[in-house]
Amino acid sequence: MSESIRILGISGSLRKASTNTGLLRAAADLLPEGMTLETFDLAPIGPYNEDVRAEGFPGPAQKLREAIASADGVLFASPEYNYSVTGVLKNAIDWASRPPEQPFDGKPVAIMGATMGLAGTARAQYHLRQMGVALNWHAMNRPEIMVAHSGGKFDAEGNLTDEETRKHLAKFLEAFRTWVLRFKA
Amino acid sequence: MSESIRILGISGSLRKASTNTGLLRAAADLLPEGMTLETFDLAPIGPYNEDVRAEGFPGPAQKLREAIASADGVLFASPEYNYSVTGVLKNAIDWASRPPEQPFDGKPVAIMGATMGLAGTARAQYHLRQMGVALNWHAMNRPEIMVAHSGGKFDAEGNLTDEETRKHLAKFLEAFRTWVLRFKA
Amino acid sequence: MSESIRILGISGSLRKASTNTGLLRAAADLLPEGMTLETFDLAPIGPYNEDVRAEGFPGPAQKLREAIASADGVLFASPEYNYSVTGVLKNAIDWASRPPEQPFDGKPVAIMGATMGLAGTARAQYHLRQMGVALNWHAMNRPEIMVAHSGGKFDAEGNLTDEETRKHLAKFLEAFRTWVLRFKA
Amino acid sequence: MSESIRILGISGSLRKASTNTGLLRAAADLLPEGMTLETFDLAPIGPYNEDVRAEGFPGPAQKLREAIASADGVLFASPEYNYSVTGVLKNAIDWASRPPEQPFDGKPVAIMGATMGLAGTARAQYHLRQMGVALNWHAMNRPEIMVAHSGGKFDAEGNLTDEETRKHLAKFLEAFRTWVLRFKA
Repeated sequence: MSESIRILGISGSLRKASTNTGLLRAAADLLPEGMTLETFDLAPIGPYNEDVRAEGFPGPAQKLREAIASADGVLFASPEYNYSVTGVLKNAIDWASRPPEQPFDGKPVAIMGATMGLAGTARAQYHLRQMGVALNWHAMNRPEIMVAHSGGKFDAEGNLTDEETRKHLAKFLEAFRTWVLRFKA
Repeated sequence: MSESIRILGISGSLRKASTNTGLLRAAADLLPEGMTLETFDLAPIGPYNEDVRAEGFPGPAQKLREAIASADGVLFASPEYNYSVTGVLKNAIDWASRPPEQPFDGKPVAIMGATMGLAGTARAQYHLRQMGVALNWHAMNRPEIMVAHSGGKFDAEGNLTDEETRKHLAKFLEAFRTWVLRFKA
Repeated sequence: MSESIRILGISGSLRKASTNTGLLRAAADLLPEGMTLETFDLAPIGPYNEDVRAEGFPGPAQKLREAIASADGVLFASPEYNYSVTGVLKNAIDWASRPPEQPFDGKPVAIMGATMGLAGTARAQYHLRQMGVALNWHAMNRPEIMVAHSGGKFDAEGNLTDEETRKHLAKFLEAFRTWVLRFKA
Repeated sequence: MSESIRILGISGSLRKASTNTGLLRAAADLLPEGMTLETFDLAPIGPYNEDVRAEGFPGPAQKLREAIASADGVLFASPEYNYSVTGVLKNAIDWASRPPEQPFDGKPVAIMGATMGLAGTARAQYHLRQMGVALNWHAMNRPEIMVAHSGGKFDAEGNLTDEETRKHLAKFLEAFRTWVLRFKA
C-alpha cells in the first residue's frame, strides 16, 4: 500500500511540558511504516457557546473540525483531572461534535494517558469512551496505554524516556494501524 | 434560625436561552425560606493551563474559587453534551480544584439538568458525581432532577414553565436545604 | 450470501414476564433475512467462584461459553437494577470471561434495554459497555435501544406491543447485521 | 461513648483465599476503638429472580437485608472483574435493594478493593458508587483504598501482609468511623 494512514493527535493538556503531549511526541517517533501523525493544538479554542456557534464556527474550532474530518483516525492523549478528562479536551470535543457534519462519525480512535497517580488515567479514559458512543467513533479496546506513576518515566520537558513504556507504545501503534485499516476498507 | 444558607449556582451552558440556566432561575424563585442563591457566570473563564496557573489564578478563576469557598453549598445545572458534562463546566471545575485551597472540599452539592433528549442528562450527572469523589464534595443522592424532553417545559427564553417540574424542583430544594444543614452543623 | 448470521441473545432478567426477555422475543420476530437468534437462559448459572472454576467450569457456564464462542454476535437485553446491569447478567459475564479461551474476544455486540423508569436503562448500558473494553468485544454505538416508561409498551406477559418501538427495533437489527458483517469479513 | 459502632463487611469474592476478603480480615484487626466488624458471606445467596422475590425473600437474602438494616455502616471489599464489580456482589445488592424496606437507605458506606492489576479496582469502585446513588447510601469519598499489584502484598491465604497498606487501612477505618458518626447523630 503506497498511501499513508493519517492520524490526528489531540492532547488534553495545554501545559508546555505535559507528559500527555509528550506521549504524542513519542508516538510520532515510534510510528509504524505507512502512518503519519499530525498534532492539533487546542490552545486557541475558546469556550463552547451555542449562541456563538449559531453564527458560525470560530476559526480554531472550524480548523479542528476539518482536521478530524480529513484524518483516517484520531489518537487522544488524555490527562486525568478530577477523575475525568480535562475541560479543555471536552470543550474541543463539544465544538467538533456540532452539526451540520459531525467529523467523529465512524472514525477509528485510540486513547492513551499518563498521570503521576495510581490509576493511569483509567477514570478519564472511560469517560472519553462514553463520549465516543454519542459521537459514533470506534475506539480500539486494546492494548490500553495507562501510564501510572509518570514521575520517573518522562524527563522535565515531558519526553517519554521509559523504555518499557516506549515498547508498549510501539505495539499500541501497530494495533491502531490494524484497527484503522479495518474501518478504512 | 436567623442566618441564611448561601448557595452558589453554576450552569454548564453559556447559551443565553439555556434551559439549564433557566433551571437555576426557577430555583431562585422557589427557594425555601432561609436560603439564598447566587449564580456564577462561567463565560469569562478561559481554558485551564497549568503554566498559567503556576503564575497565579486569572481573575475570573480566582473569583470562582472564592465564590465556592464562601458558599454553604453548590447547585449545578448541567446540560449533557456528548454523553457527559460540558467542557465549559469541566474546565471551571478544573480551575476551581487546584491548590493551595480546594474549595469544593467537604462542600454539600446538588445536581440537576435539562435536555431535549430522553435520559434527562443522566449520563452527564454520573460523570459529575465521579468528579465529586476526587473533590470530596458531598452530593445529595435524591431527589434527582433530570428534565427530559425539555422542549415543552421551558419557554423560548429558557424559563421553566412546566408546573410539575416546578413542584419537583421545590421539593428538591427543600431536600437540599436539609442536606446542607447536615454538613453545616 | 447463503450462510446465516447467528446471534446469541442474552437477557439479564430471570423474571418470566420480563420486558427485556420480551425485547429478545420481539427481535426474533423482526430479524432481517439471513440472521438467526437463539436465546440463552441464564437461570441455571450459579454464583461465580474462582475455586469452583479452578476445578472446571460447571455445565451451564461451559454451555454459555460455547454458545458465545460459536455465535457471530451477541445481543444483550439488559434491565437496569440499581443504576447498573443485573447481578445475574454480570455473573454470567464473569463465568464467560475466564481463561483459557475468552469467547467475547473480538465479538460484535449490540445492547438494548427496557425499564419502567425514565432513562431507558442508559446507566446500565454504559456499565455494560465498559465491561466490553475489558472483554474486547465490539459494541455497536447506534442506534441505541433504551425503552423508557415501558409500562404501556409491553403486555402483561412482557411482549412488545408498541409499534414505534418495534419499528425502531427492526432498524436496530438491520444496523447490527451490518455491524456483524464488518467484523466477520 | 459506651455504645459501639457496628459495621457490616461484605466481600464481592467467594474465593477462599480472596485478597478482598483478606482486606476485611485486616480491617477487623485494625478497627479503631468502639467499632465492631461482622462479615457477611454471600455464598448462599442465589440468583435474583423477581418471581421468586414476589413469593418472599429466600432465607439468605432476608438475612442479608436484616444484617444491613441493623448495621451502622457497610464496608465493601470489591474485586474488579471485567472492569466492574463482581456479579456476586451486584446480585447481593439486587436482593438487598427490593421493597418493602430498602436497608441501604441513608446508610454510611465505605469501599475498598484489591487487585493484581494496575488500577486498584478503580473501575469497579465507581460503578459501585453509582449504585449507591440509586440506593441512597452515603459513600465516604476519602481516603480511597485501591490496592494495586496485590501479588506481593498478601500471603497465599489472602492475608494482608504489606505494612504500608495496613497503615493506610487503619487511617481509612478512622475516617470511616468519623463518617459513620456524622450520619448516626
